[in-house]
Amino acid sequence: MVSVNEPASGLVVGVDSGGSGLRVALAEAASGAVLETFSSREPVRTGPDGISAGHFLEQVLPAVAALRERTGARPVAAAAVGAAGMATLGDELRAELPRAFEEAWGVRRLALAADAVTAYAGALGQRPGAVVAGGTGLIALGTDLTAWRRADGWGHLLGDCGSGAWIGRAGLEAAMRAHDGRRGGSTPLLSRAEKLFGPAAGLPGLLYPRTDRPAVLASFAPEVGRCAAADPVAAGILARAGAHIAEAAEAVCPAEPGAPVALTGGLFRMGEPLLAPLRSALGELLPGARTAEAAGDPLAGAVALAAALATGTLRLPEDPSLLRLFGAGAA
Amino acid sequence: MVSVNEPASGLVVGVDSGGSGLRVALAEAASGAVLETFSSREPVRTGPDGISAGHFLEQVLPAVAALRERTGARPVAAAAVGAAGMATLGDELRAELPRAFEEAWGVRRLALAADAVTAYAGALGQRPGAVVAGGTGLIALGTDLTAWRRADGWGHLLGDCGSGAWIGRAGLEAAMRAHDGRRGGSTPLLSRAEKLFGPAAGLPGLLYPRTDRPAVLASFAPEVGRCAAADPVAAGILARAGAHIAEAAEAVCPAEPGAPVALTGGLFRMGEPLLAPLRSALGELLPGARTAEAAGDPLAGAVALAAALATGTLRLPEDPSLLRLFGAGAA
Repeated sequence: MVSVNEPASGLVVGVDSGGSGLRVALAEAASGAVLETFSSREPVRTGPDGISAGHFLEQVLPAVAALRERTGARPVAAAAVGAAGMATLGDELRAELPRAFEEAWGVRRLALAADAVTAYAGALGQRPGAVVAGGTGLIALGTDLTAWRRADGWGHLLGDCGSGAWIGRAGLEAAMRAHDGRRGGSTPLLSRAEKLFGPAAGLPGLLYPRTDRPAVLASFAPEVGRCAAADPVAAGILARAGAHIAEAAEAVCPAEPGAPVALTGGLFRMGEPLLAPLRSALGELLPGARTAEAAGDPLAGAVALAAALATGTLRLPEDPSLLRLFGAGAA
Repeated sequence: MVSVNEPASGLVVGVDSGGSGLRVALAEAASGAVLETFSSREPVRTGPDGISAGHFLEQVLPAVAALRERTGARPVAAAAVGAAGMATLGDELRAELPRAFEEAWGVRRLALAADAVTAYAGALGQRPGAVVAGGTGLIALGTDLTAWRRADGWGHLLGDCGSGAWIGRAGLEAAMRAHDGRRGGSTPLLSRAEKLFGPAAGLPGLLYPRTDRPAVLASFAPEVGRCAAADPVAAGILARAGAHIAEAAEAVCPAEPGAPVALTGGLFRMGEPLLAPLRSALGELLPGARTAEAAGDPLAGAVALAAALATGTLRLPEDPSLLRLFGAGAA
């Protein structure tokens, strides 16, 4: 077991669990340098109470054991887990993980974080600022290192404004408008939608029975990006998306001049058709902030959290629904 | 069996089957005057192929038998069935109903109609014009008596713009924006949402696991109406809803000057907060049309269709996905 008096002597474990799978990294506690990683495309099962702790541990414990063998089984000083929906759905995880990790590796310092927090720590480390994580959904998280502020991330019916699902949904609505002869329609988007999904009138029958409707909607977002240069309706959708994303960043960004705002996640790989209006909206709503490159991804963020726990240098604030600390690392 | 030469001698059956239940009327073929009605709050079961024909017939055949006993078992000259989703989902119904009705009552003239068509026939009879049917969803249907034009009705993710689900969803988004401190938020809507659903942060957990998400969203629409007088955000949502509804009407309304536009369905019971911006948008987009009172409901429309079939006076156009005719009444 690692003693509290030698916090940085060993390794740390970082875990990123989300809809697209599970990733685990083993890193040096002192430097945060990653030594080995494991990844699986099988997402951890979720039930009504959130992530299944059993399924999570079934995957994580052997993965860490294998990684540790390859690094000489040095002691694990701390672990950090970032998981989608940790905030509202992770009761089972919170109840079972601390003991399971302690039993398996003797690790007592543990952080459980919402995936938005690991995205933040990956993008900006422990600096104050704001991070917008965009993919199928969209959430903005900001901190002045005293408390967190969160905006959006409410899902495709209540928000996620400007997300992949939001852009794709707006694009498909514009396609159906063109199909009907209603104002606001886009013939190029109708043509793209019919190439992807078949005749427009069949789209409801394809979409509504699916359980992954937000992902189906988001799958159309790149088409909106591709049409934007020549189609004013598509360009208008991305201008509104850029404004929504900037509004979320504005709501969470600390007031300090020069606060960094980082954009992270697959949404921003759409490139200039989205980034140009977004930069313009950020310039208008947050003239004092500066756009920062995201330094790393959520797995890097989990490693950074674990390393900060191990070395007693954690500055990001605890929060009951965003970042929970257990064991000797807890405040 | 009713002969083709005495089309108006008997009775007609009208059926309205939808999400809120089943209604059946027995009426005079010659006048369309309703003699008896039956209603059940149990909606007909639907599966992947649409309405269950077995469940539908289990309810309709005994109901019609009971109504006929009370009217002296006079012959049935024609029947018309309006059903939600007939357009895309009614294969089983189309395959089984004609024979089942002929076996039960000797009736050979049958119309199967999308619920939007029975709404049209109930509201405007057989005149050319446009009808907007609004509730949880929203669809506009228009005809010049040569062909039908349809706009929207694509469901809460692809359209139904201006519907109850659309208004409620926009209201809840505004509530979440206020919760986050984002622009475009409404504190009055946040307060109404928390009174109805509890703390805002718990709303995703309440909404997304439901299978009747559109109905949950639509349940918030009346709150948007109530807030509109004092809250500019709520008023803005209803102004956009009014514009969307007028756009759907514009897309389907025949060009003839003075064409009637009727609004029907529970959505419009929201009253002036929605109707005032809607009238203004209709005046702008359809200056040549006139708003008409809906004469009757979809059950009255089904009766009107059946009476027209029985008397050989059907003027509304056949359409493979909106109005199908079977037996001697078919063109």
